[in-house]
Amino acid sequence: MKNTFGNHLSVTLFVESHGPAIGIVLDGLAPGIAVNEEIIKEFLAKRRPSSDLDTARVEKDPFQIVSGVFQGKTCGTPLTILIPNEDTRSKDYTYGEARPSHADYAAHKKYHGHEDYRGGGHFSGRLTAAIVAAGGILIPALEAKGIHIGTHIYSCAQIPDRTFDEILRDGLSQSELADILLLLREKTFPVLNEDAGEKMKEKIREASQQNDSVGGITETMITGLPAGVGEPWFDSVESELSHILFSIGGVKGVEFGSGFALADMTGSIGNDALRYKEDGTVYTESNHNGGINGGITNGMPVLFRCAFKPTASIAKEQKSIDFLKKENINYKGKGRHDPAIVRRACPVIDCVAAIAVADLLTGRYGTDYLA
Amino acid sequence: MKNTFGNHLSVTLFVESHGPAIGIVLDGLAPGIAVNEEIIKEFLAKRRPSSDLDTARVEKDPFQIVSGVFQGKTCGTPLTILIPNEDTRSKDYTYGEARPSHADYAAHKKYHGHEDYRGGGHFSGRLTAAIVAAGGILIPALEAKGIHIGTHIYSCAQIPDRTFDEILRDGLSQSELADILLLLREKTFPVLNEDAGEKMKEKIREASQQNDSVGGITETMITGLPAGVGEPWFDSVESELSHILFSIGGVKGVEFGSGFALADMTGSIGNDALRYKEDGTVYTESNHNGGINGGITNGMPVLFRCAFKPTASIAKEQKSIDFLKKENINYKGKGRHDPAIVRRACPVIDCVAAIAVADLLTGRYGTDYLA
Amino acid sequence: MKNTFGNHLSVTLFVESHGPAIGIVLDGLAPGIAVNEEIIKEFLAKRRPSSDLDTARVEKDPFQIVSGVFQGKTCGTPLTILIPNEDTRSKDYTYGEARPSHADYAAHKKYHGHEDYRGGGHFSGRLTAAIVAAGGILIPALEAKGIHIGTHIYSCAQIPDRTFDEILRDGLSQSELADILLLLREKTFPVLNEDAGEKMKEKIREASQQNDSVGGITETMITGLPAGVGEPWFDSVESELSHILFSIGGVKGVEFGSGFALADMTGSIGNDALRYKEDGTVYTESNHNGGINGGITNGMPVLFRCAFKPTASIAKEQKSIDFLKKENINYKGKGRHDPAIVRRACPVIDCVAAIAVADLLTGRYGTDYLA
Amino acid sequence: MKNTFGNHLSVTLFVESHGPAIGIVLDGLAPGIAVNEEIIKEFLAKRRPSSDLDTARVEKDPFQIVSGVFQGKTCGTPLTILIPNEDTRSKDYTYGEARPSHADYAAHKKYHGHEDYRGGGHFSGRLTAAIVAAGGILIPALEAKGIHIGTHIYSCAQIPDRTFDEILRDGLSQSELADILLLLREKTFPVLNEDAGEKMKEKIREASQQNDSVGGITETMITGLPAGVGEPWFDSVESELSHILFSIGGVKGVEFGSGFALADMTGSIGNDALRYKEDGTVYTESNHNGGINGGITNGMPVLFRCAFKPTASIAKEQKSIDFLKKENINYKGKGRHDPAIVRRACPVIDCVAAIAVADLLTGRYGTDYLA
Repeated sequence: MKNTFGNHLSVTLFVESHGPAIGIVLDGLAPGIAVNEEIIKEFLAKRRPSSDLDTARVEKDPFQIVSGVFQGKTCGTPLTILIPNEDTRSKDYTYGEARPSHADYAAHKKYHGHEDYRGGGHFSGRLTAAIVAAGGILIPALEAKGIHIGTHIYSCAQIPDRTFDEILRDGLSQSELADILLLLREKTFPVLNEDAGEKMKEKIREASQQNDSVGGITETMITGLPAGVGEPWFDSVESELSHILFSIGGVKGVEFGSGFALADMTGSIGNDALRYKEDGTVYTESNHNGGINGGITNGMPVLFRCAFKPTASIAKEQKSIDFLKKENINYKGKGRHDPAIVRRACPVIDCVAAIAVADLLTGRYGTDYLA
Repeated sequence: MKNTFGNHLSVTLFVESHGPAIGIVLDGLAPGIAVNEEIIKEFLAKRRPSSDLDTARVEKDPFQIVSGVFQGKTCGTPLTILIPNEDTRSKDYTYGEARPSHADYAAHKKYHGHEDYRGGGHFSGRLTAAIVAAGGILIPALEAKGIHIGTHIYSCAQIPDRTFDEILRDGLSQSELADILLLLREKTFPVLNEDAGEKMKEKIREASQQNDSVGGITETMITGLPAGVGEPWFDSVESELSHILFSIGGVKGVEFGSGFALADMTGSIGNDALRYKEDGTVYTESNHNGGINGGITNGMPVLFRCAFKPTASIAKEQKSIDFLKKENINYKGKGRHDPAIVRRACPVIDCVAAIAVADLLTGRYGTDYLA
Repeated sequence: MKNTFGNHLSVTLFVESHGPAIGIVLDGLAPGIAVNEEIIKEFLAKRRPSSDLDTARVEKDPFQIVSGVFQGKTCGTPLTILIPNEDTRSKDYTYGEARPSHADYAAHKKYHGHEDYRGGGHFSGRLTAAIVAAGGILIPALEAKGIHIGTHIYSCAQIPDRTFDEILRDGLSQSELADILLLLREKTFPVLNEDAGEKMKEKIREASQQNDSVGGITETMITGLPAGVGEPWFDSVESELSHILFSIGGVKGVEFGSGFALADMTGSIGNDALRYKEDGTVYTESNHNGGINGGITNGMPVLFRCAFKPTASIAKEQKSIDFLKKENINYKGKGRHDPAIVRRACPVIDCVAAIAVADLLTGRYGTDYLA
Repeated sequence: MKNTFGNHLSVTLFVESHGPAIGIVLDGLAPGIAVNEEIIKEFLAKRRPSSDLDTARVEKDPFQIVSGVFQGKTCGTPLTILIPNEDTRSKDYTYGEARPSHADYAAHKKYHGHEDYRGGGHFSGRLTAAIVAAGGILIPALEAKGIHIGTHIYSCAQIPDRTFDEILRDGLSQSELADILLLLREKTFPVLNEDAGEKMKEKIREASQQNDSVGGITETMITGLPAGVGEPWFDSVESELSHILFSIGGVKGVEFGSGFALADMTGSIGNDALRYKEDGTVYTESNHNGGINGGITNGMPVLFRCAFKPTASIAKEQKSIDFLKKENINYKGKGRHDPAIVRRACPVIDCVAAIAVADLLTGRYGTDYLA
């Protein structure tokens, strides 16, 4: 429903990038989940612009939890996090001049001129700060249940990283996989292969110097999910995850397991052979299905990738329209923007995945599960 | 919610492939929509196996509308379509033997042995017949509002078809595009380039002869959607569509506009330049965003592709498990199955897209909009 | 959502009294619940007209479960029950002549003339047969968990029955209360005091002879609900129950515990004193709050009453309008109707209460709880 | 869903009476609704304790709109209102001592000791301030559409006010009715008969002096709703309204039109005769159905009453338990509380009714309707 996601554990976003504050309400949280403000700060820090690779806009995120926490733990009632907006330069935006590949024109047709256009308003990537703050509560709670989530830059500016698929072929234990995911979450520029990371950064700097931007692909792994979670049809794990992943600005593609590449395989190659381990646990020899069959988890790691388009805001001159003056214009971006959003998207993906997973588990096992 | 999709206009599925009947309830339909049973029959016929390319299982779909229609039109109350199950061979299935890449094992973990395992039960592709019947009501209603939907096989067994992107570059008028989409819906094997289609069929036959299967990618275009439909964040057009698309068995990837390829572009190339036509209408020179910005339609054709994995059921021997006997086995498929589901998936994609679009429009313009 | 109720376990109704069939879909049922068709038959029998007190319309209810049951138990997938319509006399209804206090005129304004007006269409009390059939699955499942539901005619035609409040003052054990509720469900005319019941029947016959009708009040008790179920605010137990109770045609008032009478008390009288029993269980000395505080169960029996208006369909001549001819008319009912619906309402109330309670419990304890 | 209400236009509450702030998010608001902070202040003032009739607790309500408003109008995105908590005396509450007829014990069973027990926490009537602030936006928007809502104290401490039914018998025009409703909203102690009001106040003061409390009944009228709004079955106008009315702390009964009294009538008396006026408009001679037939508005004023139990918090000693020490105690209230909540409930009822009505209208006529 519009700005609320989740059937059992839900989040409601409220936000304009240039309003007094952005915020998020989490409802359906089990009572008794530990809330550590230091971890929330760390999560927010990872999403923040931190180097020459990112926007020059300074984002501090002093947040406040205004409800739902008592004596350091969730109460079971709606938990609300507020993040005041500070450094905003409203003068960077002229209403009527539509930024190409931004929501400006579509929003104008929807809101009839009442939209808060400053800084992208309700569409600003700024709003993901609230999601990341929520993740700072949910991800530690999931980890306490043995469920780990991590995201790396699968490719950026056509430079590929090492892949989770390669790592899975190494036959690592679940705790070894968890360590890799935890390590990724600590990195400022989360890649599996640091050399690839350096090349990506170079490409990003190049794009920035040319007043241009680059896109990229993220890859996410979730380990520790029990088999039997999710629903056939409309609440499939893929449906739930893709629903919230496509909510993030800039995501134009989502694929699970081998995804589009799987469409090119034959059944005899693409099918994942089921096997018993000696200890009686079930696994699949390959994981082309990304841990999901018929919409339901099969106990293997859940794998998905998100395609992020290049940042729409660039300083190069582009053809566009002024929809107030009703004329064609040449548009040149004035704001401060990221030459690549894919780096900062990684913690956001982790956090929306955590929301979807927490919702599925709360529905499956009841309202006290995450405590 | 599980087997219900849609906030304003909703569908509820009920189905097991080997139960007495499958069915669908449509709720929130405007009163006064014409219901033509002949069109529903045509839609069902297109989804049905019809040649050596498909399963040998004979599917007749004698359907019955048991509520919601009065004097040839919708009443505004829930419309229910029932399709009895007939030709089912329960003996083809042995409980415990998990078919690789099927839901058998995951379902066992979810339903604890109570699942109706015959013919895939609730997971069977058979259930899409009910969705297609619903589309036989919604698609004509959308067409009456100037909204057209069509899907072709973008690639199958690595053979590419011509693309919608190429067609859009020809600068066709909206009615010319609508004609192309209507034509596609009439085809038994919906491709834009018949030569490519013949090569695909050859590959499908080859796979079938080798007791194997192939996957494929579908591409869908929706024209005539007004700008300003959809919501930022959780009810984005991409979120709504991907949610229902990933409900269809076998879909492992969804991308909008240029999708994953857009992630490889720079902003200066990937951004869609906005322009005014001489008649005052707004268009974009390219359509890398697939007609959606910030989750909201911009008036350009909505474009998306779905990756279908190869049919999991193949007659080749594969490694698997028997989860009742708790042992590794060699599994050899016994049922009758499609060597490629992508052909039969095209009308299903059209129909689920129609459901999502009808839901968005009903929310935007009210409950009488589609009449 | 319109014809769907429930967040975790949901029901979807589809129905017109004169269409081919009425039906209900239950979704979110735990897998493994026993389904006994004989019990469903008994439930349907109790709702059926059975004597001179009821409509002369013959209602047989041969039902069919078309999905969701396998080997006598729920599969965990949507369970659909169909009840074909048989004895319908469409000629009893003339479109345009609005029956006073019926939905005819309001429906005309909503559906613009497309409504199926025959026999009340979607508004017919006939549709509660589907709800009662669903109750025939849910109520035994709740009983297996120690939760009992029963309803009696609290008053009819101003004749009062004995009350649950009086019975609770006797200090009965929970199993003695359960016995009383089970006994009530077996009665054709469910009252606690048979003498009062005889007087009610007399009044109903009198009304019938005068071509008139009478209203009444039902009272329901639910025992065995654990304390701590329900939510503050919008998913309060009262909110959930009243939502579905007011869905039943003819209900114009709902009160919990002492309800409207509680509004006349002072706090020192109306407050329910909490006490520990010797065995350490908590109870309240009175139960003016009907087992619910702050929207959450407190472990005491849940008590509520529903006010049913007199049957709107009477054979007496009344002032009304013909909204097609746009003129005032004198209307005389032609159909066959109940002089009092309150008797047949009792099993319906039991069943909608079961739906709401099963939904709350499934949300609280997870999807496997009821199995 | 827990703390979110509404299918099309929704509200989400977040609150603890002793946390940093309480708040509400409105989602689905049409863009372009005027937001007047002075009116919101007036609404909050009416709900605030203002005399010796109310709690001695000082409630200032300095609110802040943190999102969703731009240049004095709604943007169409979530509108969030924050009200900081100030005057709170946490020491008035001792955890474990359950206040009789309060949520303390039920909450303990639900939240396992993690609940914020101070001042009733999430259960506090304080939270209705956020609802009233939301009403300060919705009610003027509805009035601009010709829809008026007003509530009076129908009875308090057994003293009856004049009734809406009597007023309707005077045959007033719709604008005369609207004037009465507007006048009621301006009153500090909203009654139709000032003499009755004085007697009520006397009784409230008496109760207060005796360290006791009284209950009461509110009556609400909504005029100007078009016929044809609402749904049969689960989204009936009665279902939607009762759902949100029973969310308000202390409400134990809701009845529409003549409600429980209608259950005592015969059909020939209780049926509302439909008639055409000379100007072609339809009305009913009586309004026992409260403007709703079959769950759908019929164009007559919507009428309902809510039974409020006496304030549970009283300074008299009462029997209760300490659920930490697990022993029976004598409990004596220490906080500052209202001897009667019914006066302050009137604006709250107006505002929740406005939420339900705005939701129904937005669903019926689309997302731009209220602008």
